[in-house]
Amino acid sequence: MATSNTDTSNAARKKEVKKETRLGLTYKKDKDFGEWYSEVCVAGEMIEYYDISGCYILRPWTMAIWETLQAFFDAEIKKMNVKNVYFPLFVTENVLQKEKDHIEGFAPEVAWVTKSGQSEMEIPIAIRPTSETVMYPYYSKWIRGHRDLPLKLNQWCNVVRWEFSHPTPFIRSREFLWQEGHTAFATQDEADQEVLEILELYRRIYEEFLAIPVIKGKKSELEKFAGGFYTTSVEAFIPNTGRGIQGATSHCLGQNFAKMFEINFENEKGEKAMVWQNSWAYSTRTIGVMVMVHGDDKGLVLPPKVASVQVIVIPVPYKDADTQAIFDACRSTVDTLCKAGFRAEVDLRDNYSPGWKYSHWEMKGVPLRIEIGPKDLANKQVRVVCRDNGAKMDIPMHSLVEQVKEILSNIQESLFNAAKQKREACVKVINTWDEFIAALNNKKLILAPWCDEEDVEKDVKARTKGEHGAAKTLCTPFDQPRLPEGTLCFASGKPAKKWTYWGRSY
Amino acid sequence: MATSNTDTSNAARKKEVKKETRLGLTYKKDKDFGEWYSEVCVAGEMIEYYDISGCYILRPWTMAIWETLQAFFDAEIKKMNVKNVYFPLFVTENVLQKEKDHIEGFAPEVAWVTKSGQSEMEIPIAIRPTSETVMYPYYSKWIRGHRDLPLKLNQWCNVVRWEFSHPTPFIRSREFLWQEGHTAFATQDEADQEVLEILELYRRIYEEFLAIPVIKGKKSELEKFAGGFYTTSVEAFIPNTGRGIQGATSHCLGQNFAKMFEINFENEKGEKAMVWQNSWAYSTRTIGVMVMVHGDDKGLVLPPKVASVQVIVIPVPYKDADTQAIFDACRSTVDTLCKAGFRAEVDLRDNYSPGWKYSHWEMKGVPLRIEIGPKDLANKQVRVVCRDNGAKMDIPMHSLVEQVKEILSNIQESLFNAAKQKREACVKVINTWDEFIAALNNKKLILAPWCDEEDVEKDVKARTKGEHGAAKTLCTPFDQPRLPEGTLCFASGKPAKKWTYWGRSY
Repeated sequence: MATSNTDTSNAARKKEVKKETRLGLTYKKDKDFGEWYSEVCVAGEMIEYYDISGCYILRPWTMAIWETLQAFFDAEIKKMNVKNVYFPLFVTENVLQKEKDHIEGFAPEVAWVTKSGQSEMEIPIAIRPTSETVMYPYYSKWIRGHRDLPLKLNQWCNVVRWEFSHPTPFIRSREFLWQEGHTAFATQDEADQEVLEILELYRRIYEEFLAIPVIKGKKSELEKFAGGFYTTSVEAFIPNTGRGIQGATSHCLGQNFAKMFEINFENEKGEKAMVWQNSWAYSTRTIGVMVMVHGDDKGLVLPPKVASVQVIVIPVPYKDADTQAIFDACRSTVDTLCKAGFRAEVDLRDNYSPGWKYSHWEMKGVPLRIEIGPKDLANKQVRVVCRDNGAKMDIPMHSLVEQVKEILSNIQESLFNAAKQKREACVKVINTWDEFIAALNNKKLILAPWCDEEDVEKDVKARTKGEHGAAKTLCTPFDQPRLPEGTLCFASGKPAKKWTYWGRSY
Repeated sequence: MATSNTDTSNAARKKEVKKETRLGLTYKKDKDFGEWYSEVCVAGEMIEYYDISGCYILRPWTMAIWETLQAFFDAEIKKMNVKNVYFPLFVTENVLQKEKDHIEGFAPEVAWVTKSGQSEMEIPIAIRPTSETVMYPYYSKWIRGHRDLPLKLNQWCNVVRWEFSHPTPFIRSREFLWQEGHTAFATQDEADQEVLEILELYRRIYEEFLAIPVIKGKKSELEKFAGGFYTTSVEAFIPNTGRGIQGATSHCLGQNFAKMFEINFENEKGEKAMVWQNSWAYSTRTIGVMVMVHGDDKGLVLPPKVASVQVIVIPVPYKDADTQAIFDACRSTVDTLCKAGFRAEVDLRDNYSPGWKYSHWEMKGVPLRIEIGPKDLANKQVRVVCRDNGAKMDIPMHSLVEQVKEILSNIQESLFNAAKQKREACVKVINTWDEFIAALNNKKLILAPWCDEEDVEKDVKARTKGEHGAAKTLCTPFDQPRLPEGTLCFASGKPAKKWTYWGRSY
């Protein structure tokens, strides 16, 4: 083992350094999940807490991931002929309140600007919590005939929801970044179809990029978007807290907003008709789910596809060894990898020990570490260490690129498989109320036969209220198990109509 | 001429259609510049006016240009190792006011959030007008030793300046999009060098992408960034109004903010030192300058490098001609061009005449139009028409790609040359106050010998106040003409220190 000497000789010093620089996490993921999560976001340099509660600084380590997801999604929607647009941050009270159900859902969280400089404004102006009411008056203006349809617009922007519940980095913040797509069609068929196309892109963001398994499904009437027709979502699950988390939503708004904002068009027959609308969004929350699902007690674990540094190269000089040659080998290794299209960096800092660097880059979740010491140099090889499972192996320099490619691809896959296995282990199929309560107490992702009645969901919520929050529907999965005839709703005892996921949620 | 028949036969009908659909601009650029500008922004589908004054909707035609500029600049600063980051939209009063000169400059324009939902906030929160004070408390935290330097961060975001002066799309809006770079260095040398590197990127945005000549120079003490050390800028000029316009700014902040926010570090000798800082920004204003400089009485004129559609292909069917074959030729022309890397589209709408389409795409400023009619089809050629100068030529299909490439490149170049020529014609070198006033009244870009004293600039401002606004310094160009010994300041009669551009400005 090329680096064992160095490791051993540095052991004592490493410990000391670790203490000095406070590397390593104070909290354990299994024990104090909430504290662990905050700590890993900060120590991994993804987030800095800001002096306004519920607002966070997204550091470069976060933004690189966001930009990767953005590049993928933006290119995909452009293929679908969606165009980017930018609507104002501000909206008047008058317009904001046009759709009653919608405003009821958002009103308590709206931030209001009432002053500019030293002057009181004549009318207070709201900051967008989402842009349906900002945009749709103009859809009404731009859409005249069937040739103006479909109208497919998207914007990348910030939105503000001044929530008072417990703020959490990425997951629940007062300002966040997202994309919001807003489309209008001549027919419901087209709208329905797009809802699912977008949902599939959201699945791919989670599963292909962030290595997080999600469930595609439909939201209940109680949980659907305020003012919408129906809502589909991808739902993730956090095993440690036993909570579901809505990953992204693709809504069909039906003709509800069209009615309020008078978005009409002349159809091919020359008749006046009303458009069908969708809206869909995913936010920086995606990144929080990634931290929660993959992180461990050493820090972040980043899937290779989104990591801004996929490979970190660390020189392991040793006493009499030729330090310069080792440094050169590190540099040339990084060069080789970068030229091959990998995102690789070298840590040549002279004021930190190799051990300290190992911990530092583990904390930051870099998928693959390459160590180069005197023996590696002599043997024309490098030592690689996988972040996800600690596996180590020696790779001959001549096959570096091929093997790194394979290893990174394996890490991506095994992160997804591990996460899926953990989630599967949490799924509990139940049939009765007692089983439901037991599963809820055991932090399960509960799949239950349900009568699909709003009052029953309200009742379940009321009966499960407690310090951990009430249970609610997460989604009715599109992928429905067989529902044997005569199956009864776990909560109401009425005939069940479908299988639905239930649980506590973020 | 392949399309002449069609053109002639459609002439009368075209005129009628034009009236019907209100194509064409009401205002002339030379006569009513302000009205022309608003109209062309709206009719070219770049901007939609919004129901809050000073806020505008940036439509896809605008956003595509913005994204092109963004892709260029973002890639360039990443090469310089600048990392993207996202800081909150909000800042507390306390922090905002930390740098006195700075807040004095921005205070009258700050929008304040005082309410969320129905509740008054405990303390009002400001919306960022720029992010120096938002960011620098954290620079103080993140920068400890010389190894933490340079720290180079950038963000793409919206900012809000609630101005009360005449709002103008792109040029003066209450919310706008920009990037703001904020960097910290150990030495002034490094900071000075970066200021110019960034300024060069801004020059390239204007000259290489937007085909607008700009002057690089330094701002006067009166015009520099509030709280900064010195400001450099690229300055454009609008001949029609005789006004200069600040295109983008690259500031050296010196150690002023470092002092206020205690951004210190231990240097290589182990001594405590203070960082040197820069900040730099360009905004969606760039796009407004482009509209003003290149647009004409037919509408927008987009430089090929930034146009989201570089080539519009229009079928010109004629009576008995084989319409299907013409349509197919249009489609295959677009295919060929797209495969060759051009941004080309075809307009196959059947409810508009070719003439209407010509006017429509001229209004939208598409650099090159391709017409395909029966004769073109027979002769295996296409007719191309340049937006900038109306030049027409027939191109054989077999050399389509090479010739389109050359033509677009020529258009880009000739737009720049034409703009430069127009600007040069406006430059007036003067030496005396009388010459200055005469030049100002003639809407000139005035180059004058100046003593470089703040009081003198204030005095010039006071003496030129009037309905068109006061004259001020635009910049002291880096490229200085020879200043003969004994040259006197045009305004004070004191010995002149430099040549400086003066004029009215946006």
